[in-house]
Amino acid sequence: MKFVPLLTATSLALSALAASAQVAAIDSSALREEAKGIFEAIPETLTAIKQTEENPGGVPLTAEKIELGKALFFDPRMSRSGLISCQTCHNVGIGGVDGLPTSVGHGWQHGPRNAPTMLNAIFNAAQFWDGRAPDLAEQAKGPVQASVEMSNTPEELVKTLNSMPEYTEAFKAAFPDQQDPVSFDNFAAAIEQFEATLITPHSAFDRFLTGDDNALNEQQKRGLQAFMDTGCTGCHYGINFGGQDYHPFGLIAKPGADVLPVADKGRYEISLTASDEYVFRAAPLRNVALTAPYFHSGVVWDLKEAVQIMSSAQLGTELTPEQVDDIVAFLGALTGEQPQITHPILPARTDTTPLPAPM
Amino acid sequence: MKFVPLLTATSLALSALAASAQVAAIDSSALREEAKGIFEAIPETLTAIKQTEENPGGVPLTAEKIELGKALFFDPRMSRSGLISCQTCHNVGIGGVDGLPTSVGHGWQHGPRNAPTMLNAIFNAAQFWDGRAPDLAEQAKGPVQASVEMSNTPEELVKTLNSMPEYTEAFKAAFPDQQDPVSFDNFAAAIEQFEATLITPHSAFDRFLTGDDNALNEQQKRGLQAFMDTGCTGCHYGINFGGQDYHPFGLIAKPGADVLPVADKGRYEISLTASDEYVFRAAPLRNVALTAPYFHSGVVWDLKEAVQIMSSAQLGTELTPEQVDDIVAFLGALTGEQPQITHPILPARTDTTPLPAPM
Repeated sequence: MKFVPLLTATSLALSALAASAQVAAIDSSALREEAKGIFEAIPETLTAIKQTEENPGGVPLTAEKIELGKALFFDPRMSRSGLISCQTCHNVGIGGVDGLPTSVGHGWQHGPRNAPTMLNAIFNAAQFWDGRAPDLAEQAKGPVQASVEMSNTPEELVKTLNSMPEYTEAFKAAFPDQQDPVSFDNFAAAIEQFEATLITPHSAFDRFLTGDDNALNEQQKRGLQAFMDTGCTGCHYGINFGGQDYHPFGLIAKPGADVLPVADKGRYEISLTASDEYVFRAAPLRNVALTAPYFHSGVVWDLKEAVQIMSSAQLGTELTPEQVDDIVAFLGALTGEQPQITHPILPARTDTTPLPAPM
Repeated sequence: MKFVPLLTATSLALSALAASAQVAAIDSSALREEAKGIFEAIPETLTAIKQTEENPGGVPLTAEKIELGKALFFDPRMSRSGLISCQTCHNVGIGGVDGLPTSVGHGWQHGPRNAPTMLNAIFNAAQFWDGRAPDLAEQAKGPVQASVEMSNTPEELVKTLNSMPEYTEAFKAAFPDQQDPVSFDNFAAAIEQFEATLITPHSAFDRFLTGDDNALNEQQKRGLQAFMDTGCTGCHYGINFGGQDYHPFGLIAKPGADVLPVADKGRYEISLTASDEYVFRAAPLRNVALTAPYFHSGVVWDLKEAVQIMSSAQLGTELTPEQVDDIVAFLGALTGEQPQITHPILPARTDTTPLPAPM
């Protein structure tokens, strides 16, 4: 976690100064130094995950686990209907989302919240809009069992896996030290490893952060400055521009009930603590230009409108139209190189594979 | 189209001879020569499609059209709901099918027939179970408009395409000579070009056919011989082992109403000709080991059972258990190299992109 600078008198004064002299070129070096104190670039690749102080090596990523996880991620037979895979709602081709207000699952049921992207999700401190899963392995266990999503059970899923020799061999290869490698836990662990490869380096912002003055245009630089000066970074900081901690949606002013439905109380639903009412994990903003519609309710399609709602709801600030445009332009610079994924050829079913139940 | 030999007294006598000396090794050269008169190997790649006598050059495949077609094939925004793409029912990872009895479409409606594979479909004389589309471009226009499938309209689809500059540029590049390249026809033509790349060369059978005696084991060779001797090749001939012409399902004996539902009268529904009742296109058998469940009704999961049903319904023959096993083993040799497809990164939506209507 990175240090989050509060707004200071100095930075506010500098901001005012910048606003009064908008035509003057921005000092890229100073802007970069300030940004480096708040953000981090997405690395080229990861070789391990879950590094902690006690376990600095973390859990190494292996080619066998990643390949297995990719197959599981794309396999619709992991769902009760045989129709829905992780990829259905976290589409690698459209920014890791489904582009729907809330996801459609088993029996065409509509889920309660907008599907967050799995791109760069490995860098989030916790998963789901309410952060109820500590990591991507725990997250992966959710949708596969949720009755409105994939509607499967761990028992049935393991039966499906065990019915296909290509899967049992792949689990053995991925978890070579285990006696009984085909398990729901390993299913989730393999998906987590694949998802750890779904990162998007080399965004214009990252190229700027690592030294290329020209990676951002002037408007994007003004947007970055405004993003830092107006307080967006209070929640949207770190490598993922969010995803690190929790904040009440509507800190200053609650948005309308369409954007913040009364019935969805956020973290309160898992903690039953009054102060957690309407508290959500700060949304990570990497690739945000690709992940409309916005917010957990998924009702806002326009990034500009989303920025305006955030500024009034969270900051109590009325941004100028220019500031909004600049920030939106800057957010476009958070689109990184999308992962190039070869679609897996999935194991062939056998006579013992449970039949899909699409009814 | 290839010449289809009828059963001759000689081949029947040879077959009886072979049956009486099952332990004797099969003469691979003779078997190959006989097979070459009936079948053809899948080529490595295609460079053109739709070659005719009048137009021997056909329609050349181009990289621009193929890439565009791939994006369209994988893009769920081609459907009204924003959730369903060609790939949903014709999954490149599971043999080009969805592995369901009949497909699930818009609003979780169940389609009337089992989804046929698009792998090698370019080699079929016509598309759909009833052959109502003369080619894959016409075919592609069907599901996208069918209310139980993608439930879109050509107008809305073209609006969606025109809303994304990356698509309009891709259409311009793919159809450089056209004034107004973003059209429903070109949408279909591009998908057809992509699908023409979805072919599966190098099956064990094809390797045998092109000279490798050891590509088939003895059981598979017996199966190939039985497949030719018992009359399967009356319908299942040519490069795709079917897909060339039409036959009544239940020529000799109608199967049960679960397998052949009374209400689905096949080609009769398009021709309204009595002799077309329960007439279907002979199913292409390439990759058949991957495409369960079987028949237009999709109720038979076991390939062995499917072979038994076919032999009694179409040939009036009670195959011996050994013949059935041999034929099933042989059909496994029709599984070719599955296409390695890099999942496309799809164009980003814009403010003018029609909203999905998943309700």
